[in-house]
Amino acid sequence: MPSQTTLSRRAPRRFWGWGQADATLDAREQATVKTLTEQLEVPWSERPVPQVHEFTLPPPRMAAPTALAAQFSAAPLDRLNHSAGKSYADLARMWLRTPPAPPDWVAYADDEQAVVDILDWAQAHNVAVIPYGGGSSVCGGVEAAVGESYAAVVSLDLERLNHVLEVDPVSRAARIQGGTLGPELQAQLKPHGLTLRHFPQSFEFSSLGGWIVTRAGGHYATQHTHIDDFVENTRLVTPAGVLQTRRLPASGAGPAPDRLVLGSEGTLGVLTEAWVRLQQPPRFRASASIRFSDYFAGADCVRALAQSGLNPSNCRLLDPLETVFSGVGDGRHAILVLGFESADHPLDAWLGRALELVRDHGGSYDAGAVARSLAAQGGDEHRSGAAGAWRDAFLRMPYWRDPAVGLGLVMDTFETATTWDRFASFYASIKADVGAAMERATGQEALISCRLTHVYPDGPAPYFTLIARGDAQGSVASALAAWRDIKQAATAAVIHHGGTVTHHHAVGRDHRSGYEQEVPPLLRQMLAAAKQVADPTGIMNPGVLIDPVGRSVGIRGGHGCAGPRTESLGQNSALAHVNIA
Amino acid sequence: MPSQTTLSRRAPRRFWGWGQADATLDAREQATVKTLTEQLEVPWSERPVPQVHEFTLPPPRMAAPTALAAQFSAAPLDRLNHSAGKSYADLARMWLRTPPAPPDWVAYADDEQAVVDILDWAQAHNVAVIPYGGGSSVCGGVEAAVGESYAAVVSLDLERLNHVLEVDPVSRAARIQGGTLGPELQAQLKPHGLTLRHFPQSFEFSSLGGWIVTRAGGHYATQHTHIDDFVENTRLVTPAGVLQTRRLPASGAGPAPDRLVLGSEGTLGVLTEAWVRLQQPPRFRASASIRFSDYFAGADCVRALAQSGLNPSNCRLLDPLETVFSGVGDGRHAILVLGFESADHPLDAWLGRALELVRDHGGSYDAGAVARSLAAQGGDEHRSGAAGAWRDAFLRMPYWRDPAVGLGLVMDTFETATTWDRFASFYASIKADVGAAMERATGQEALISCRLTHVYPDGPAPYFTLIARGDAQGSVASALAAWRDIKQAATAAVIHHGGTVTHHHAVGRDHRSGYEQEVPPLLRQMLAAAKQVADPTGIMNPGVLIDPVGRSVGIRGGHGCAGPRTESLGQNSALAHVNIA
Repeated sequence: MPSQTTLSRRAPRRFWGWGQADATLDAREQATVKTLTEQLEVPWSERPVPQVHEFTLPPPRMAAPTALAAQFSAAPLDRLNHSAGKSYADLARMWLRTPPAPPDWVAYADDEQAVVDILDWAQAHNVAVIPYGGGSSVCGGVEAAVGESYAAVVSLDLERLNHVLEVDPVSRAARIQGGTLGPELQAQLKPHGLTLRHFPQSFEFSSLGGWIVTRAGGHYATQHTHIDDFVENTRLVTPAGVLQTRRLPASGAGPAPDRLVLGSEGTLGVLTEAWVRLQQPPRFRASASIRFSDYFAGADCVRALAQSGLNPSNCRLLDPLETVFSGVGDGRHAILVLGFESADHPLDAWLGRALELVRDHGGSYDAGAVARSLAAQGGDEHRSGAAGAWRDAFLRMPYWRDPAVGLGLVMDTFETATTWDRFASFYASIKADVGAAMERATGQEALISCRLTHVYPDGPAPYFTLIARGDAQGSVASALAAWRDIKQAATAAVIHHGGTVTHHHAVGRDHRSGYEQEVPPLLRQMLAAAKQVADPTGIMNPGVLIDPVGRSVGIRGGHGCAGPRTESLGQNSALAHVNIA
Repeated sequence: MPSQTTLSRRAPRRFWGWGQADATLDAREQATVKTLTEQLEVPWSERPVPQVHEFTLPPPRMAAPTALAAQFSAAPLDRLNHSAGKSYADLARMWLRTPPAPPDWVAYADDEQAVVDILDWAQAHNVAVIPYGGGSSVCGGVEAAVGESYAAVVSLDLERLNHVLEVDPVSRAARIQGGTLGPELQAQLKPHGLTLRHFPQSFEFSSLGGWIVTRAGGHYATQHTHIDDFVENTRLVTPAGVLQTRRLPASGAGPAPDRLVLGSEGTLGVLTEAWVRLQQPPRFRASASIRFSDYFAGADCVRALAQSGLNPSNCRLLDPLETVFSGVGDGRHAILVLGFESADHPLDAWLGRALELVRDHGGSYDAGAVARSLAAQGGDEHRSGAAGAWRDAFLRMPYWRDPAVGLGLVMDTFETATTWDRFASFYASIKADVGAAMERATGQEALISCRLTHVYPDGPAPYFTLIARGDAQGSVASALAAWRDIKQAATAAVIHHGGTVTHHHAVGRDHRSGYEQEVPPLLRQMLAAAKQVADPTGIMNPGVLIDPVGRSVGIRGGHGCAGPRTESLGQNSALAHVNIA
């Protein structure tokens, strides 16, 4: 008889929404939600939040392995918490009380050996394994509904693999377990005077392993932006054995091994450890908040900054509507949040030159909004001005999204990257295409905003936010239906106009239709063949990224996956003469 | 009847050595060679250089395909030029008049369609294909001796695919053909005011495609050092079809597609085009030449610079013996060649802070050796002081190696990377292990020097140079035998002490024994499975990097491949239960 009590040792999570179970909104956040409902003309009310007892879960289809039983939970809260991630559709389905099928079991592996044992057991019993770090996926990356070809599904939670195992202060690197969440990692590194400085929006509820296998986007707006750039080595438990790469600062020996692990999204195995590069916390900061009356003049300025070699740590351009969503502007200007930081040197020369470029491109700023500061000791939290306001709004947004979803609003984001030569038309086309889809789906004028989150010398990473309603009654079902249409249009538009289907949110299930257009069939067949070596029976995170060879992976009804599946790898390929089965 | 005249349209190359056929040494270089022979106590003489008529080549084992015959050459000079690369062993075997078996044909593909046609023909007729860019491989990467399991071998020379096809001045990027050599590429970009700024030592005689598939190390000592960082997309003609990735500044969609092409060393297909990131030529430069009486104090300084975020473009630390080899010192000090460059801003603040770090670490410099300059228009060639002297010696070295090899000297380099925490012991151990092997093999005191060519926050890339003789008569055969022992010891030492088998010279044939220890079997099996999709019959560059599945690839006697082959993938694997055949 499975226990009814969670085996998680962490503070309880909100299975139907973001963050801690006991999280509350402050008065201003509550007002924001209310304002949104007024603006979109849906009724505001206190809708009852989902409760565990409202969900009827089928019993596990298979007994837990005896030797590992103490680490296996079938508690309803655990199973609900692990049924999906935190995308808009995941939350809406919870409000509708129709989540995807939960895993039969949630396994809280005590250590790496338990991970090995669980994979051995799963492989022997045709059980699908969903690696689960912080569960913050917004693209269907941790969903447990994998279709009928598996005898059972286990969600493999890595919360107990949450330690910094070794610190090398000379090379500034640490060996860290894959299940370590952002705050855990920071806290354990702090006594060493070091930091990873990787702050995705999900920081509190995402893990190092999750960042690595999804190629998360981090703190830095320029230069090293993806976690990829901070990985020295990886250790992956696959069904075929443990795969550990050599810890190195760089190498030219064949295709980079870690680059096959980075972005594998749980389809090859479970990331149990990695050596990652660290830094000293910044001591010097310099920042400015800059207004542009013309958005594209701002984008040209960002391009000049990205091509200058000055490498600002923050270089985020918010379009006028985005400044309203973020609470840092009134919608009349584009705002550029520009910042430099260093543990080594004052930044006057850097900021000085950057502000010359700003003026050359028509940007304006108040002298009082230019800050040059020596950070307080351990001053990671030192923030002020637009940068501080923007960051606070950024981290709190997922919290107030929860009640908004329950009130029948669609709140979602999608992000991409494209080259500068096509950016202006890309931006306009995306807003036009997705805006039209929003108006078709909702009957209202579209609210779609954009910020540039990361910028490269050859192109920006635009991040779009959209807010809409389903119908005038605030029906969550209508909103979810509208979201499906909008998401499909967004994915199609991003691909059609020359972007990538994801800059740092991963592919998961939701972006597969775009991924299959973006990445050539031959390359996906090569990845599928590589996967087959590591995961011969196709048990690892089926449905995500790339299908196991010779295995039919169903995606059950009710999932929000956008777009028809255009292709089934290895069956309907343009390169039919290549047999990888 | 095959033509006796080369089909190459380039200035004739020296088939038995480096560079242009008519290259000569100046008086100082001749004196250097003479001094070396005196120091190593071998007799100096003008030995007759190899001539084409001294080599008896077997006739091609198969007729050229009729439709492509005009692009196929069996001229002896072409076949000799394409029999191997430019490693020490390649040159020694030419002096011995015992090169590896040449290709049956050299194909000068007119265009990409010809590449496709040649691969189709080769696949249909069991012909091995050796992609050939500039032919400068120093690790057996372009050798045509591939064993008896192929009906014939064609070396596929890409010299006619040498155009910049498209320039995007806004994103600063260009679409360039894979066969374009360094100088060709620079000359075609110059009218656009842009440069790739990738200057490997082989710059004159290596191609963009070669750089990409070998992950070449470039101009920059810090930050972006490998060509990997400059690749926007790739276009690869494989036996299974054309594989073109999407041109993007960045993406997080699955494992990075281009990273599978980068480092593939011709085993997947032929790189015909790539979009690469460009820059404006530097307008501002600041540099200094710094002495350290203690080498490890110099290394600590380099570490501080690498961790400072200042990103010097040049940060090369030469140990005392290396300063002698490079002609920039007298062997009493270590010398740090430090430089900054920018197209955007003066570098006083950068150099100023760097020199503070230098002084903190006990470095000294003459005020006159600190240069801050505004480069002349198009001043890529603007150089002075130690940096200039070092660069000139660097580019000329391969030229005077030619007669030295003919006189029975071993001149070779090997390069690696390791983390800072182990660097001091790594350096000492490598010098001890390889030095001992040199003394065993030659009976003389070892001459082995080191410079740090590229540095990362978490570790340096040490580059070792060694000079030795075979015996007192200056026998090339003895020298080659000694080299085999030394190379084997160097590879073993690098791996044993925690380095990578290659930082930027690639794996080829010569580094396979180390590669097979460095990269786990499971990962190599995954790569082999991916290769099998792109190259189902295993015709692409056999013998290099990773073996085709289910194919016996012989490496004929006479090749300098170091070390016994420890393992045959898929046959003698630690993971025998994984069947990838």
